[in-house]
Amino acid sequence: MRHINTRRSIRRYTARDIEPKLLNRLLKDAARTQTMGNLQLYSVIVTRTAEGKAALAPAHFNQPMVTQAPVVLTICADFRRTTAWANCREADPGYDNFLSFMNAATDALLYTQTFCNLAEEAGLGLCYLGTTLYQPQAIIKALQLPKLVFPVATLTVGWPAEEPPLTDRLPMESFVHAESYLDPTPKDIDRYYSPKEALPENQEFVRINHKKTLAQIFTDIRYTRKDNELMSRSFLDALRQQGFL
Amino acid sequence: MRHINTRRSIRRYTARDIEPKLLNRLLKDAARTQTMGNLQLYSVIVTRTAEGKAALAPAHFNQPMVTQAPVVLTICADFRRTTAWANCREADPGYDNFLSFMNAATDALLYTQTFCNLAEEAGLGLCYLGTTLYQPQAIIKALQLPKLVFPVATLTVGWPAEEPPLTDRLPMESFVHAESYLDPTPKDIDRYYSPKEALPENQEFVRINHKKTLAQIFTDIRYTRKDNELMSRSFLDALRQQGFL
Repeated sequence: MRHINTRRSIRRYTARDIEPKLLNRLLKDAARTQTMGNLQLYSVIVTRTAEGKAALAPAHFNQPMVTQAPVVLTICADFRRTTAWANCREADPGYDNFLSFMNAATDALLYTQTFCNLAEEAGLGLCYLGTTLYQPQAIIKALQLPKLVFPVATLTVGWPAEEPPLTDRLPMESFVHAESYLDPTPKDIDRYYSPKEALPENQEFVRINHKKTLAQIFTDIRYTRKDNELMSRSFLDALRQQGFL
Repeated sequence: MRHINTRRSIRRYTARDIEPKLLNRLLKDAARTQTMGNLQLYSVIVTRTAEGKAALAPAHFNQPMVTQAPVVLTICADFRRTTAWANCREADPGYDNFLSFMNAATDALLYTQTFCNLAEEAGLGLCYLGTTLYQPQAIIKALQLPKLVFPVATLTVGWPAEEPPLTDRLPMESFVHAESYLDPTPKDIDRYYSPKEALPENQEFVRINHKKTLAQIFTDIRYTRKDNELMSRSFLDALRQQGFL
């Protein structure tokens, strides 16, 4: 994983397809990831057709990667297959509840990240679409996901056609705590965030949006309270609809 | 990541410590993982002291790895640092809701899995403790986690003192779907699960527990409806307590 320190999200891809043999090897190898009770509580929907991508695109706010990438992967928390197994084996499955969703979502996200690490090592470029959690109902509909299956991650995957600059990261002391959680003081916050705030691209971002601080870009534009509260309700509705709440 | 196909969870460790320099490099490199809006919505609590491990052990049903590993890592979904930043910068943060928990939990789990892949590549052995989601309140208390911080993963880490056999995995066709979700038929279930059910260790497991099928081991003993429903309620209570619901 020598690539880890030079990895970046890739949003533009060449016309080259991903050979099914390569994709399948990566999807299979990623399944070596640890999983709860060795139950593998996830599924992956592979979208390669133009129609399939077009159906998913609105759920991801029509970000162009969805229709332009050769492959879109939707990774789902899945207790349905395990439940079907139990039903076929004189066992009484009790996985239609919130804890089971969290267990399956955990399995699915760990699997997803090993896939990302493997795919990037193989030279592929990826973009992780956080929008999956914003409009799960639209994805459930597009992919015809039945009860006890819930989308938690989407990746657009292809051969890179760009090499964007590396993004910054917070200093390690801001997110690693020894023995117990140490609440950051305003002085700590200055030390952690000043380098990010001083980046020319972030200063420009604040200026063109007529904001006073970079934090306001996040709270007022990108991830607002209003949107978060609205999407929290629709996420919980989707959990109910899929039988997890 | 040539190690991926020979990786196994490691529950016994040698007496050798993990050098802080190595651990810090892994914790830092893992932060190259993609993260929502580059906000890094996670924290890691590093437990090295005997007292700290003893305080965490009951939350993990006193599994011996917790007190025997040189290092225990608790990875948390964290919107507190970002909220503190906004509060220091004339911004109005709206991250005390369920969607924000899911966003931060996602960030934390992706970070966790890159850490796992890096640590295993460096020769370390890991055990991922799913119990983190079973008794979050006990962990919150042991680590003094404030509001908007929620534990989602625990790793015990050390130098391997065992080489357990590789565990089985389901065939890829059971979890990879082309274009839309294909519900498994009873015939599919037989094909997917028969190899697992035929393993001598699983047959022995069924026999000594006086069960008829392997699936019953999961539904009646390991992950029962009663426990799942109880823990679902206490998980939601913990989300409320930490300000995410």
